[in-house]
Amino acid sequence: MEQVKNKQIVLKNYVNGFPKETDMILNDSSTINLNLPQGSTDVVLVKNLYLSCDPYIRILMHETEDASFGTFTPGSPFAGYGVAKVVDSSHPKFKKGDLVWGETEWEEYSIIKSPMTLFKIEHTDVPLSYYTGILGMPGMTAYFGFYEICAPKKGEYVFVSAAAGAVGQLVGQFAKLSGCYVVGSAGTKEKVELLKNKYGFNEAFNYKEEHDLNATLKRYFPNGIDIYFENVGGKMLEAVLPNMRTNGRISACGMISQYNLEQGEGVRNLSHIVVKSLRMQGFIVTNYFHMYPKYMEMIMPLIKQGKICYIEDVVEGLESAPAALIGLFSGKNVGKQVVVVARE
Amino acid sequence: MEQVKNKQIVLKNYVNGFPKETDMILNDSSTINLNLPQGSTDVVLVKNLYLSCDPYIRILMHETEDASFGTFTPGSPFAGYGVAKVVDSSHPKFKKGDLVWGETEWEEYSIIKSPMTLFKIEHTDVPLSYYTGILGMPGMTAYFGFYEICAPKKGEYVFVSAAAGAVGQLVGQFAKLSGCYVVGSAGTKEKVELLKNKYGFNEAFNYKEEHDLNATLKRYFPNGIDIYFENVGGKMLEAVLPNMRTNGRISACGMISQYNLEQGEGVRNLSHIVVKSLRMQGFIVTNYFHMYPKYMEMIMPLIKQGKICYIEDVVEGLESAPAALIGLFSGKNVGKQVVVVARE
Repeated sequence: MEQVKNKQIVLKNYVNGFPKETDMILNDSSTINLNLPQGSTDVVLVKNLYLSCDPYIRILMHETEDASFGTFTPGSPFAGYGVAKVVDSSHPKFKKGDLVWGETEWEEYSIIKSPMTLFKIEHTDVPLSYYTGILGMPGMTAYFGFYEICAPKKGEYVFVSAAAGAVGQLVGQFAKLSGCYVVGSAGTKEKVELLKNKYGFNEAFNYKEEHDLNATLKRYFPNGIDIYFENVGGKMLEAVLPNMRTNGRISACGMISQYNLEQGEGVRNLSHIVVKSLRMQGFIVTNYFHMYPKYMEMIMPLIKQGKICYIEDVVEGLESAPAALIGLFSGKNVGKQVVVVARE
Repeated sequence: MEQVKNKQIVLKNYVNGFPKETDMILNDSSTINLNLPQGSTDVVLVKNLYLSCDPYIRILMHETEDASFGTFTPGSPFAGYGVAKVVDSSHPKFKKGDLVWGETEWEEYSIIKSPMTLFKIEHTDVPLSYYTGILGMPGMTAYFGFYEICAPKKGEYVFVSAAAGAVGQLVGQFAKLSGCYVVGSAGTKEKVELLKNKYGFNEAFNYKEEHDLNATLKRYFPNGIDIYFENVGGKMLEAVLPNMRTNGRISACGMISQYNLEQGEGVRNLSHIVVKSLRMQGFIVTNYFHMYPKYMEMIMPLIKQGKICYIEDVVEGLESAPAALIGLFSGKNVGKQVVVVARE
């Protein structure tokens, strides 16, 4: 019986408004037994290597009566996506030494009791951290949200908000691969440069420097927008709606601008949905994880041939996770925000 | 050459805000020749019998740069749906004496130059005015918007706003026929009674008497809403969103509460679209008129067997049309608003 320390990031209390680092506590008094008890079944014990900071985590820090999306429990560790190594397993699909990605917790070691969304990592000739991003949940989000929800056609006009983020950078590149014209918005000059020069967006702008987003979008899309990949909500959505073309599609992937508001912003211009026959569709990517093998078949060759790139913002140590998570909401991260818990 | 007077309702000026009767002018100085000129092709000259007052007409009274939905021209007659009798025709599909329904103008006689949306009336054993409603554009709207966009399943929970209107009364009855539980909202006690006692809605409420629509909907839908048939927009939509269930569908048919506002209301709670995987879909029913024969096959037996009912609010005379149209926006009409121009 090998008992070891198991540092954790736990939620202090439910959060309203903008989250702070002090809403999370580093608990270093917890311990864990590195052997599963005899007789356990379908349980996987993992050592966490990389953890993923994702905007949706903010939703789970809020107390809600609405169980549809779930919520964290104060005093318990955060849950989220990560890359891990199997230390012990009573699940037939996983054995000691396997590398996996999927839902884990914000701690050094985790016991995963119902490994529904745990995938064995087959390809290790790419950075392992990619399985928190391009080869993991955000990759599947971009893939499903763009190809399935938006059903892009060659020559269509695509707008992506939060375009330099974990999902947006991929959507823009998928749009280019589909023969679309794509414009992205981001919140710093550096990110705008990346969008244009690294990811190949046709155009990009810094939304913080624009005073009239409606006019900005008219300038970048004089013919209107066919596809909007929605990551931010609020005022951006309000400005996009009048610029949509007939039969346009909006993939409602996230609305990060709204997550920290006590009461979300009101969005005007929704009657464009009627008049222009728009379709706006939300989705939870976990419902489409059965398509992961198909996605891998598409994305791995693109990565290996250098036809797609992926930028990560990597911080070291579990203790860095709270600040990294908070940084998402001020746009501090450049690319996918990853936390290294251990390198092997 | 038979020259006759041709009274018309014309738009005085583009309208902002709540429309007034005085925004429309009865022009009684116009005349028309009741024989088409020799050599005309594909033109139909009709005598208008019934005209339809529909909320979307308000959108066309507003000046817009956006050509996607069109606009009227000041000094020209209103356009809209109606039932008419063919007086002369150079179109192979229509001959003198035919009864037709489709897009015509607000005048006694109209020349229809591109009869793309003109249907020959085959069944005259029902009130002719039905072709402005249950057997016309609003009927197709309810049919397509409910069955195709909402894809109802037996046992689902359906909410219909403006439920006593031309479209809503049908959606409620279609929902019952589909084995759904359906609740409607309307703006008077009389309409609420009709919804429950005449159309067979499970429940109905007067939204004007409710101070907290979110709480009202929670009361009527303790398990949440699967399908929302959206006719009003604004505050009602804002209250519906948190009450939607996962994978819910919103058919965005109209947003009458917004048409008279200089700047539409902001709608909160849109992040429920993401979190609950909602689909919100607008549509323009004319794009689906090819399905009209299929709809007729379904609806005619239901009417004849008394399994569906339809209430009309009929006013007499073209000169009554402006007040009838304005009445839609204060909810004055009970059922489908029809204007009788001539009985034969």
